[in-house]
Amino acid sequence: MSELFSALSDTGLTPVTDADVIAAHSVDHARLVEPGRAAALIRARSTEEVAAVLRVAAERAVPVVPQGARTGLAGSATAVDGAILLDLSPMDSILSIDPVNRIAVCQPGVHNAEISAAAAEHGLRYAPDPSSWRISTIGGNIATAAGGICCVKYGVTAEYVLGLEVVLASGEIMRCGRRTAKGVAGYDLVHLFCGSEGTLGVITEATVKLSPIPPDRLTLAAVFDTTAAAGRAVTAIMAAGAQPSLLELIDNVHLRALEDLRPMGLPTDAAALLLVAADADPNLELAEIERLCGGAGAAEVFRATDAAEADALLESRRQALHAMERLGTVLVDDVAVPRSRLAEALDGIQAASERHGVVIGVIAHAGDGNLHPNIVVDADDGDSVAAGRAAFDEILELALGLGGTVTGEHGVGTLKREWLEREVDPVNLAAQRRIKAAFDPLGILNPGKILAG
Amino acid sequence: MSELFSALSDTGLTPVTDADVIAAHSVDHARLVEPGRAAALIRARSTEEVAAVLRVAAERAVPVVPQGARTGLAGSATAVDGAILLDLSPMDSILSIDPVNRIAVCQPGVHNAEISAAAAEHGLRYAPDPSSWRISTIGGNIATAAGGICCVKYGVTAEYVLGLEVVLASGEIMRCGRRTAKGVAGYDLVHLFCGSEGTLGVITEATVKLSPIPPDRLTLAAVFDTTAAAGRAVTAIMAAGAQPSLLELIDNVHLRALEDLRPMGLPTDAAALLLVAADADPNLELAEIERLCGGAGAAEVFRATDAAEADALLESRRQALHAMERLGTVLVDDVAVPRSRLAEALDGIQAASERHGVVIGVIAHAGDGNLHPNIVVDADDGDSVAAGRAAFDEILELALGLGGTVTGEHGVGTLKREWLEREVDPVNLAAQRRIKAAFDPLGILNPGKILAG
Repeated sequence: MSELFSALSDTGLTPVTDADVIAAHSVDHARLVEPGRAAALIRARSTEEVAAVLRVAAERAVPVVPQGARTGLAGSATAVDGAILLDLSPMDSILSIDPVNRIAVCQPGVHNAEISAAAAEHGLRYAPDPSSWRISTIGGNIATAAGGICCVKYGVTAEYVLGLEVVLASGEIMRCGRRTAKGVAGYDLVHLFCGSEGTLGVITEATVKLSPIPPDRLTLAAVFDTTAAAGRAVTAIMAAGAQPSLLELIDNVHLRALEDLRPMGLPTDAAALLLVAADADPNLELAEIERLCGGAGAAEVFRATDAAEADALLESRRQALHAMERLGTVLVDDVAVPRSRLAEALDGIQAASERHGVVIGVIAHAGDGNLHPNIVVDADDGDSVAAGRAAFDEILELALGLGGTVTGEHGVGTLKREWLEREVDPVNLAAQRRIKAAFDPLGILNPGKILAG
Repeated sequence: MSELFSALSDTGLTPVTDADVIAAHSVDHARLVEPGRAAALIRARSTEEVAAVLRVAAERAVPVVPQGARTGLAGSATAVDGAILLDLSPMDSILSIDPVNRIAVCQPGVHNAEISAAAAEHGLRYAPDPSSWRISTIGGNIATAAGGICCVKYGVTAEYVLGLEVVLASGEIMRCGRRTAKGVAGYDLVHLFCGSEGTLGVITEATVKLSPIPPDRLTLAAVFDTTAAAGRAVTAIMAAGAQPSLLELIDNVHLRALEDLRPMGLPTDAAALLLVAADADPNLELAEIERLCGGAGAAEVFRATDAAEADALLESRRQALHAMERLGTVLVDDVAVPRSRLAEALDGIQAASERHGVVIGVIAHAGDGNLHPNIVVDADDGDSVAAGRAAFDEILELALGLGGTVTGEHGVGTLKREWLEREVDPVNLAAQRRIKAAFDPLGILNPGKILAG
């Protein structure tokens, strides 16, 4: 241990020694994940420092766990036994904003929302918007291939990453991708790193695509007495060729939790609320969506009276997990199904809740068929935890059965390694292992994440 | 040789024996590329047949060259000595169109335009539109990560591929990706295959994203006396946050060639014509773009009077290469630069044309900074060919110097292997070679394409 410390110190790095700080850095936002015991914590301030850490680690075959804001929900940033925790959050500069070429070049520790804030003076934004956007980092967003709320119209993180600087397991610094709008020179390494959860390299710089700030949106809320009717409305909206800029579902459990957190008159008797916005020709678009919601059996549909009310509704949606965490420890699940099967997924989750006797609230990026069943357990009660875990697994099984995936946007991390093996075929899994070996022959980069050791 | 034939025949395959047919299949649309001598040609009718070919090839370490419509412009489908040419074009069925989930599942030999035609009854389309869209296949589009004309607003092929079935070098069949709108389970193998030009596996099925057919567009044409002014107009349009649905530049050489091909009143005295369309709020958008073109020094700006005239202008643009090929043998170059440097690129290409005494016409997806300098040579005149090749290389050098890439959308193929090595850093190149080795340890898949042997 002390040899590792001196090796790190010899390269000019300053390992953090405070045990409490290391303990705090040993977990991310995934609950009921038992972290390993880290050996050290380094707060990296430059690409060269990251490379120095990797060289020290490679020489000693010591694991390295890259970390951003640790807001991830799948355990990909949790400590591994004997690892160096490599905190990238001090690398938090926006290096450039280029409005003509519509790109931003950022260090990994920049918060998602800061990019849009910096681009706004040029009428541009960085579109992907995970609910954590104010506190999560762009490096973490890319490493987990994060989704968000606007994806239904504007796509996910991976679609906005043009180029990366990455430090490989060897300590070598690599650039991949480009700064041009188009480019196809060689294999697409950029997208291989998107969603690789720190297992193939450490992202030290990102060139991301900016896009024009969309016109003002209008928002409506549709109240449903059954989740099946809400599911039918989503299917009808997407089948009609509509392009809502957000299409979120909030179930009864969440409506009540949100209203408890901050009373704003949410319909706490409803089975589900759909929140829908449009920004192209919003009056016309929402009129059509309103009609389709009515046809699907909405009990009530109302428009947000102004931007402030619309923003309040969306902000309320972003607080969903926070609201649920007041009820207990929350196991956050994340599955995606073909959107045509949303209603079946909702029914199956309800059945799992009843079968296992646990509270499950569902929040969904409904337009994408991406559901977050939030399972509430009492972390001090073994039976409750066991029931929650059983429901968690049953929901993953359900998603696969519906032609879906075990993770829509949160990643595999430590939570779903076995489930990845069930989702993909053995030939695919073997290919993934060969890629891992090609980039990290010693297996020092975030070992045990995505792929079981 | 006959052992290979009997091995292929023994698995139930029917190798084509006609030497003329094999010769015709030994080249793609790249000019002045000397193909190798193929050993056999198989027209595959199913995934199982593709797997059978790969197993035979793997046992004998015989190279395999996957082919679609061979409309590629970088030589990635040209024959390799001793290779089995594997023609996927008979696998030409659209397997399903799913309007709610907005996906199409296609065999690789389906022509690009056929997907949109099949989706149209649901108000959907397959957006990416290379100029070859009526004759190129979806398998080839994916294998080359093809671009197109609508990319400036709607993005490139890779952004529309959700899932693939691929036959690996071993003959194993692998599925990767998903059918859901979102999904992040494991490494992104789908995008690794996009643009891999048949060097990592053979695509036998693709699940692609459909999107709503955009509203009717309006089109304008702006005439410029200098290419510098046209470049300024592009910069101004993109800096203003406009979102044209196409933004194409046609230079004087092309204007004259197109007018010769089919007279339609193109301004043959102009240095450049910009063709711009908008489809969101087109009247308002084009008014702004018209103003910006005027400010950049357009000599004249006119709107297409109706959809027929707009379509004729666009169709004319799609005929650009065909028109140039009437002048001689055309070396099609393909570079992308930051769009802010478009004018510099145009100046540099003009200088290369003068220095080497060769005719170079430039057609550009200007909004993306993606230029196609079409270099006209006399294939029977060694000096002309040498001058053309020198200009070709000088343009690649120019693009790299401007912060660009040696291929915006056509790929590396055999034409630009050495240039790929100049574009990416040695660490990146080594990573690409490790990926190739991880998927194709024997080096039988399209050897010598992308990466020099």
